[in-house]
Amino acid sequence: MHRFRLRIPLSIFVFLMLILLSGVGFGQTKIRTDIAIPDIPGYITLKCDFHNHTVFSDGYVWPTVRAEEAWHEGLDAFAITDHVEYQYFSADIPVQLNRSFDLAQAAALELNLLAVKGAEITRKMPPGHINAVFIRDVVPLNTSDYRDAVKAAKDQGGFVFWNHPTFPHPEGKAIWSTEIEELFAKGWLNGVEVVNSTHYCPEAHQWCLDKKLTMLGNSDVHDPMAIEYGIHNREHRPMTLVFVRERSLEGIREALFSRRTAVFWEDRLIGEEQYLRSIFNASVRVLNPRLGMTGKGVALLQVRNRSDVDFELEADGEMDGFSFPREITLLKGKTVLLRIARKNGAPRIATAQKIDLPYRVKNLLVAPVKGLTVVLGADIEE
Amino acid sequence: MHRFRLRIPLSIFVFLMLILLSGVGFGQTKIRTDIAIPDIPGYITLKCDFHNHTVFSDGYVWPTVRAEEAWHEGLDAFAITDHVEYQYFSADIPVQLNRSFDLAQAAALELNLLAVKGAEITRKMPPGHINAVFIRDVVPLNTSDYRDAVKAAKDQGGFVFWNHPTFPHPEGKAIWSTEIEELFAKGWLNGVEVVNSTHYCPEAHQWCLDKKLTMLGNSDVHDPMAIEYGIHNREHRPMTLVFVRERSLEGIREALFSRRTAVFWEDRLIGEEQYLRSIFNASVRVLNPRLGMTGKGVALLQVRNRSDVDFELEADGEMDGFSFPREITLLKGKTVLLRIARKNGAPRIATAQKIDLPYRVKNLLVAPVKGLTVVLGADIEE
Amino acid sequence: MHRFRLRIPLSIFVFLMLILLSGVGFGQTKIRTDIAIPDIPGYITLKCDFHNHTVFSDGYVWPTVRAEEAWHEGLDAFAITDHVEYQYFSADIPVQLNRSFDLAQAAALELNLLAVKGAEITRKMPPGHINAVFIRDVVPLNTSDYRDAVKAAKDQGGFVFWNHPTFPHPEGKAIWSTEIEELFAKGWLNGVEVVNSTHYCPEAHQWCLDKKLTMLGNSDVHDPMAIEYGIHNREHRPMTLVFVRERSLEGIREALFSRRTAVFWEDRLIGEEQYLRSIFNASVRVLNPRLGMTGKGVALLQVRNRSDVDFELEADGEMDGFSFPREITLLKGKTVLLRIARKNGAPRIATAQKIDLPYRVKNLLVAPVKGLTVVLGADIEE
Amino acid sequence: MHRFRLRIPLSIFVFLMLILLSGVGFGQTKIRTDIAIPDIPGYITLKCDFHNHTVFSDGYVWPTVRAEEAWHEGLDAFAITDHVEYQYFSADIPVQLNRSFDLAQAAALELNLLAVKGAEITRKMPPGHINAVFIRDVVPLNTSDYRDAVKAAKDQGGFVFWNHPTFPHPEGKAIWSTEIEELFAKGWLNGVEVVNSTHYCPEAHQWCLDKKLTMLGNSDVHDPMAIEYGIHNREHRPMTLVFVRERSLEGIREALFSRRTAVFWEDRLIGEEQYLRSIFNASVRVLNPRLGMTGKGVALLQVRNRSDVDFELEADGEMDGFSFPREITLLKGKTVLLRIARKNGAPRIATAQKIDLPYRVKNLLVAPVKGLTVVLGADIEE
Repeated sequence: MHRFRLRIPLSIFVFLMLILLSGVGFGQTKIRTDIAIPDIPGYITLKCDFHNHTVFSDGYVWPTVRAEEAWHEGLDAFAITDHVEYQYFSADIPVQLNRSFDLAQAAALELNLLAVKGAEITRKMPPGHINAVFIRDVVPLNTSDYRDAVKAAKDQGGFVFWNHPTFPHPEGKAIWSTEIEELFAKGWLNGVEVVNSTHYCPEAHQWCLDKKLTMLGNSDVHDPMAIEYGIHNREHRPMTLVFVRERSLEGIREALFSRRTAVFWEDRLIGEEQYLRSIFNASVRVLNPRLGMTGKGVALLQVRNRSDVDFELEADGEMDGFSFPREITLLKGKTVLLRIARKNGAPRIATAQKIDLPYRVKNLLVAPVKGLTVVLGADIEE
Repeated sequence: MHRFRLRIPLSIFVFLMLILLSGVGFGQTKIRTDIAIPDIPGYITLKCDFHNHTVFSDGYVWPTVRAEEAWHEGLDAFAITDHVEYQYFSADIPVQLNRSFDLAQAAALELNLLAVKGAEITRKMPPGHINAVFIRDVVPLNTSDYRDAVKAAKDQGGFVFWNHPTFPHPEGKAIWSTEIEELFAKGWLNGVEVVNSTHYCPEAHQWCLDKKLTMLGNSDVHDPMAIEYGIHNREHRPMTLVFVRERSLEGIREALFSRRTAVFWEDRLIGEEQYLRSIFNASVRVLNPRLGMTGKGVALLQVRNRSDVDFELEADGEMDGFSFPREITLLKGKTVLLRIARKNGAPRIATAQKIDLPYRVKNLLVAPVKGLTVVLGADIEE
Repeated sequence: MHRFRLRIPLSIFVFLMLILLSGVGFGQTKIRTDIAIPDIPGYITLKCDFHNHTVFSDGYVWPTVRAEEAWHEGLDAFAITDHVEYQYFSADIPVQLNRSFDLAQAAALELNLLAVKGAEITRKMPPGHINAVFIRDVVPLNTSDYRDAVKAAKDQGGFVFWNHPTFPHPEGKAIWSTEIEELFAKGWLNGVEVVNSTHYCPEAHQWCLDKKLTMLGNSDVHDPMAIEYGIHNREHRPMTLVFVRERSLEGIREALFSRRTAVFWEDRLIGEEQYLRSIFNASVRVLNPRLGMTGKGVALLQVRNRSDVDFELEADGEMDGFSFPREITLLKGKTVLLRIARKNGAPRIATAQKIDLPYRVKNLLVAPVKGLTVVLGADIEE
Repeated sequence: MHRFRLRIPLSIFVFLMLILLSGVGFGQTKIRTDIAIPDIPGYITLKCDFHNHTVFSDGYVWPTVRAEEAWHEGLDAFAITDHVEYQYFSADIPVQLNRSFDLAQAAALELNLLAVKGAEITRKMPPGHINAVFIRDVVPLNTSDYRDAVKAAKDQGGFVFWNHPTFPHPEGKAIWSTEIEELFAKGWLNGVEVVNSTHYCPEAHQWCLDKKLTMLGNSDVHDPMAIEYGIHNREHRPMTLVFVRERSLEGIREALFSRRTAVFWEDRLIGEEQYLRSIFNASVRVLNPRLGMTGKGVALLQVRNRSDVDFELEADGEMDGFSFPREITLLKGKTVLLRIARKNGAPRIATAQKIDLPYRVKNLLVAPVKGLTVVLGADIEE
């Protein structure tokens, strides 16, 4: 009785509150920091995270927060991938499998972000956890046999990838199980997480190269992003770079199925050689390609890196007549100086000479433990 | 039927999941940054935030996140103060008025933090929003007349304070309404938020001095903390410094009722003169109090500030015979150099002389627009 | 005798040393941080500092350091302006008036920087200190009457400007003395330092506007740059922006005489309205100029600032029907969100509507205490 | 004649200038950042750099700058060690071997720093470069046979150490030459630079352990410090930690001869086990040594590191019944959380149990590639 009497004034009160609160300015400016990884010839480079949780499974934030975080951190797109079968807070939040995406999508629209609908099919290993993105309805994925769940996702046109293949032991070895092989053989597996959260999986990297699967790198965030990834000032979540023809959901979907991705993780890029080379070339520029040597036989090459990735170079061979730095880091957003010196006893240069400094970029991984080879070129004269 | 058949395997599955997930190391190190505001003679200085929201009213995080954030940011205590009458997500989360505190408290215990139970009594102005903390049960506060709600809090021994007195216009003028006067006259109002979120209220500051109310500064956070306060690297949430006899809930409660607080907001401290002076004295030290002048009549005083507050000093008077910096900032965690010079024509010092440099600390506010006066002393000789 | 015997082996030894040391890698990478202030229509924006000292007057570094610092900090050009009549270290370094420039220029060439030859004609006030840049020989400026020194600079085609007009009291009022008027009347004064080191001079600013003089902002550095300007991480020296037709010494000289400059000082730009407006327009972009309003009557404008200047905006008027932020900072290198909301009671928008948000940029000073007015425009619809 | 006529007014002018300039406030606040490496039982920990160059040999700054830099960076002491036989700028600065120290010392006194007089005896390898510090007069070291130079330093009571033993190839292998052996056998060699500039020499490290030589780590700075070591925000110069009985020149001298030093280089400490252990123990504290386990069998150990060194721990063994982090970094100035969990199947704890988590600190090098072993202890109960 007491409670009933209260309900009427309260409903009016809540209405008044909504009006009152909606105009309040007790807030802070919202700020976005773009991620400087350039577009490559023919494609726009979108920054995406295809693995996010909310309070509707076992995450600790309301779904709209995932949109705010993605905008704040300079992403273009994110997927909501709450567990289909596992809702940690179901005692407090009745299960609604499609609800978290709906909430996140509304917030994404306001922020001009692309929200991707997804779900995590959750089994112990094997086969482990499997994400399906670009699906329309999560409910059909809620079924006892994981094969049926994956099939339901594929029936909706979903893009399916295997999450953290070493789960539950992040430092362990990834095993290509018969269960995964079965999904792969059926054409139901489109990609693998080469990076999940703080962990890189070299086996997954190699499988993507060998079996022509799409490489993904995702945060798998549960806490607010700043709690999981905010330790150091410049840290960022792992993300999947998607090379699209147009900035749209369909653009992303097409690129994922076409394997046009790379992974940006900590200070590394992981991907097919062609994409890493394109990013390097679009990022790095020799500012003074025409160099005069001083009387001392020294020339200083100025190299600018406009990306947000430090490129860690080590010399990949020698050059006749000249010494050049054996190790140098092309720091993000900076110009560095490479000192080129005529070796003792080497002859002076008669005419302008083309030099190509051979380097290997240790943190652009075209295969496990294999860096991209590049050259920095200039014309030098005395 | 379909759903029923699923439930049994799912409940087992959830149990397996819990086991699987509990040991997973796919996470990051948790890091806490202490706030360097020193203890003062006779009291421990606790850093507290008495105004936090969760998804159980109109916040955007699960209650445990408020504990994680508080630990991460170096706080000692926080209060959960969800709105009593207003649950923005009630369509998804059935209302349970005591639930958010219970969840937050469990997380706080693991982290050795003090969790304070509270609630926000929410009316339009007047009287506006009122927080009650150190209460035992929120349910009795859910009543149509705000007077009854406040009385219910006081009956439980609660500490009651008025939130953001300029609401809903943060830049507006605060009015001491008859409604507030009535609560105050009854002894039901113990404090006022001098700072809420990004806004300082000078009227509230003066009321606390005149009416012997407790000064509070709180975040009123709704989003994840890093989204609301993470714009610049060194930003922190506003907080209430509580000078306690012991680090315990009862210690905080006693200090609040005894008005032993100050407010740390952006780069300012706000409070009674005695507390701000104690903090300044405990923070600042002249490293070379015995100074010799050089032949040029110059001496360099080294002053170290071990706190996390930049103290902004401006000269508050002149000194016979010597010039000294008119403006200087004692930067947080740094030692700065103050150049003392014999004025042109001033006589040389015959014997060691005690000098007291008079300053006003602009950002230690003992009243609205009134900085704390201090002296930096040294013995000088030639 | 002893010393003579040593000299022969030593000269050989020094030669060996030179060879040994020249190839040593016991060093660090040299890094340059570009200053992001964009070019403007028709002109390249060069970053220049026309006031630098070395050990050849009363500075504390070898002249080559001024080139290294300028390169490191992203400058395009710097002037060496040692005092003509005042060599603090003459007991250790015999006076050679042209020597410091020659040394600095050689280092500048290696680094692809433009080195400007200059000198500071140093008298007590009036007329105070006067810089002459773009001169060929300092020796003729070493004469007892300052008028003769200025004339010698003008005879060489020099550009002459008055330094820190409040000297020796940085906080004092600048006086347009008869001595300065005499130089000005003769056409011998081309500019004034509106900013010197940490000090802005509003009188100088106004004189430049009224008398059509060139505005300059310079460091007047004596210590290593990092000691004078390295307090906070993001601090930079004051500098003169020069809007040139080509990146060359002649390009700078022509622009200085044509008054195409602005001053970048701390977080402010100071200059003629036309140049500040061009910089603002080249820096700021509305990313979503076509905006849809949500059901709640809210739209979020995304504004990116690609420059290294925080633009501090305050509303400069109201808009019918909509509220928009009264104060907002377009942070350097960031995108911020401006919340536009239909006012209570205002009618819904029938068709797409052009809105122009009127602002004043407080820290783009087109005159003392007068900020540049701008509009941020968008098309809005519901 | 012309020049003579000028000299008279100039000498007066310079005098006026000195007065004018001495009071000028066109400067910035001078700021010192202390280095948080704590004192150890029985000794004060001084931060020292025994290898600095100035324009009086081949450095690029006036000697007083070395004092300013040392103060700014939180050092207690520095040595001026210009080359005895090699003055790169002798064409401009006539050679005076004791001059640079005199100038630096005057500046150091004003700043309350300890200036050590030294010199670098410079030969090609072998024996390479040798520093002598705590000498009284550099002139007797200027002799053709390096043995005579070292003997002259020892005759003055000097402390002699071998610089950068891999010179001129920083990445090369260090060779204990017969020349060095001869000096060592005579008791003329007291220490070796284990770290010089950016390079650590493992051979030197081992020699110091085996031959009971003093370990040193020095900057060997030539440029302004910020140009050589200012690339990243948190970088510091390499330095020698000296564990003294009193903060004085004699205190440092005694400690150097007694081998009470360690080296702080990048993110590493290098030294005898006893000193590194003392620093670790004085830096690290378990905040909650009495731990209760939650129902889930988990306890969170809070460990604070008050030093400026990140301690990188890896597990050095297992514990019966409990899992604990295999790798964790105790970040400088932070508190981190170590998750201790009862292993699956392990019995509950009956009574309070003492646990000692065994770790190896990878970056506290007690020998080349050998980290210090430590334990983190707590009492745990359920």
